[in-house]
Amino acid sequence: MDPCNSKKADCPHVAVVGAGVIGRSWIRVFIRAGCETRVYDVDPVTQAKSLKWVEEDLALDCRDGVMTKREASDQRALVSAHDDLAAALRGVDYVQESGPEVLEMKESIYLEMDRTAAPDVILASSTSGLDMTEIAHGLPGAKRCIIAHPVNPPHIIPIVEVLPGKCTSPEVVGRACSFLSSVGQTPVMLNFFIRGFLLNRMQAAILREAIQLVESGVADVEAVDATIRDGLGLRWAIMGPFGVADTNADGGVREYFTRFRDFYLTHMNDLAPTPLLDDAMIERLGRATDRMVGSNSRAGICRWRDRMITRIRELKELDPEPSQTVGRRPQRSAL
Amino acid sequence: MDPCNSKKADCPHVAVVGAGVIGRSWIRVFIRAGCETRVYDVDPVTQAKSLKWVEEDLALDCRDGVMTKREASDQRALVSAHDDLAAALRGVDYVQESGPEVLEMKESIYLEMDRTAAPDVILASSTSGLDMTEIAHGLPGAKRCIIAHPVNPPHIIPIVEVLPGKCTSPEVVGRACSFLSSVGQTPVMLNFFIRGFLLNRMQAAILREAIQLVESGVADVEAVDATIRDGLGLRWAIMGPFGVADTNADGGVREYFTRFRDFYLTHMNDLAPTPLLDDAMIERLGRATDRMVGSNSRAGICRWRDRMITRIRELKELDPEPSQTVGRRPQRSAL
Repeated sequence: MDPCNSKKADCPHVAVVGAGVIGRSWIRVFIRAGCETRVYDVDPVTQAKSLKWVEEDLALDCRDGVMTKREASDQRALVSAHDDLAAALRGVDYVQESGPEVLEMKESIYLEMDRTAAPDVILASSTSGLDMTEIAHGLPGAKRCIIAHPVNPPHIIPIVEVLPGKCTSPEVVGRACSFLSSVGQTPVMLNFFIRGFLLNRMQAAILREAIQLVESGVADVEAVDATIRDGLGLRWAIMGPFGVADTNADGGVREYFTRFRDFYLTHMNDLAPTPLLDDAMIERLGRATDRMVGSNSRAGICRWRDRMITRIRELKELDPEPSQTVGRRPQRSAL
Repeated sequence: MDPCNSKKADCPHVAVVGAGVIGRSWIRVFIRAGCETRVYDVDPVTQAKSLKWVEEDLALDCRDGVMTKREASDQRALVSAHDDLAAALRGVDYVQESGPEVLEMKESIYLEMDRTAAPDVILASSTSGLDMTEIAHGLPGAKRCIIAHPVNPPHIIPIVEVLPGKCTSPEVVGRACSFLSSVGQTPVMLNFFIRGFLLNRMQAAILREAIQLVESGVADVEAVDATIRDGLGLRWAIMGPFGVADTNADGGVREYFTRFRDFYLTHMNDLAPTPLLDDAMIERLGRATDRMVGSNSRAGICRWRDRMITRIRELKELDPEPSQTVGRRPQRSAL
């Protein structure tokens, strides 16, 4: 059962290896773009659950008018489940691996994938913490191994951090970026490995300060959250911190950072140290977010979040900023 | 010439003192809500420029279909300019001061305002760095002085940080928050003064890390910006960092921070120190943002930014998150 959408026969074929929360969302990315998608998870239960989730999530999208039943069934027909890794990798052009974040497990799966996959197939990892130089150390096919780290859930949030290992070939970096763009994601290139990459470093920076602001008693969780979502976050949904700085003074970044140099140096030097984040602190934060969530369900809030993000992305596609070159209209390209 | 919109005769009357970039945007906040707005700047040129800007910006909004000419002219009719502070403060209920960020200048203007304004009038400062305890030290009316710090431009971005000084009365805090809500802003309460308040501390945290990521060569300005605007910023436009953490695990914040405790502690401990931010560094950042801006005008990008933020706010008003209590539908309330 390897169905093929004839209109999109030029689409690369993809394998999703590891079908947990991240892997199942990748399935939606690939089938939305028309790619035949072969799924494998070492745990048959996880594998079955991921296919069920895809089906249920497509059904919810039909219910909410996000897609027609015909579109959902076309997309569903592009997914196939496989009982072993070799079968899942047969005939594919690109593998997105989303297994456990344990170096030894990654090493063994990359060894097996490198032995099994045809020579030109890209092997990409969703890892948020490991280094491809280590994962692919000593592999004959180390040059086709790369990190493509998404944000959860990737079918809603487009950014993918692309990091080569020391042996990854520049040609593979280029092909991976162009493939990810072709399926509607926004690849950003890191030149070398750094712990936390770009995204989780900046997320840790905000969280460190946010937690300290609450723990010091200066404001509550709800006030800190409102400051982001009705303040800084409104700008950050459409431009990054440099774009914001550049539009905050008539003379751009030069004028902004010159005028506010002392202001920022003072505040940067005054930022909070790393919090304890012990059980007692986590419990306090948990009680505060419980109050914020109230009687609403987290699942309902997640669904609302995904719906809102999709709408914001539609706004940006309809009226893109002229100067932004990364993340603009994906061009369909074969691998 | 003190025009009055009869339909909104119950609206508080407001004075805008200091009519620079922040003050002129406050004018738009107040007249949009139907408040008669009296404007004073110690520099007649700045004062005249601000009224001209309001007129031109209203005209642009008419051109772009944001409002009708009738609405623009009704709003314009609510603004009046005054030659001295005492005249500007006559008959108002609330003063929004946006003068220079110099303690001695603030002290002298609050002394004069406190002497001139009727006893119940709230005196609110847009300061982003000073402490109302110091500004209002020794003033007979210290209890009615408060900080109401906006984000630029406040008529586009709703958040306002509200900080009492040590002598500010709780009743004034409540009235200020309820007035700011009634004109469509989102007040967030800080319990006491902290350098940088909430917003600029979190902004400094992101910028410190972002600058270091670029300066270390791991990624370019465009990649860092894309990571925010097509990644973290999409979530932050609708929920703050605690809301994001709470929806990133089925068990909410408790599960999220317990599962990722080591991950975050490692990354938080690894965050960048304060950058030099010397002239050479600012010039490098300037060249990088120049490349990003290309041949586009900053004014055009700003106009696009404001348009997009307005649309995102409309999306949020049409489909609000059930659990958010701060920043929801402003209730009109008299002071």
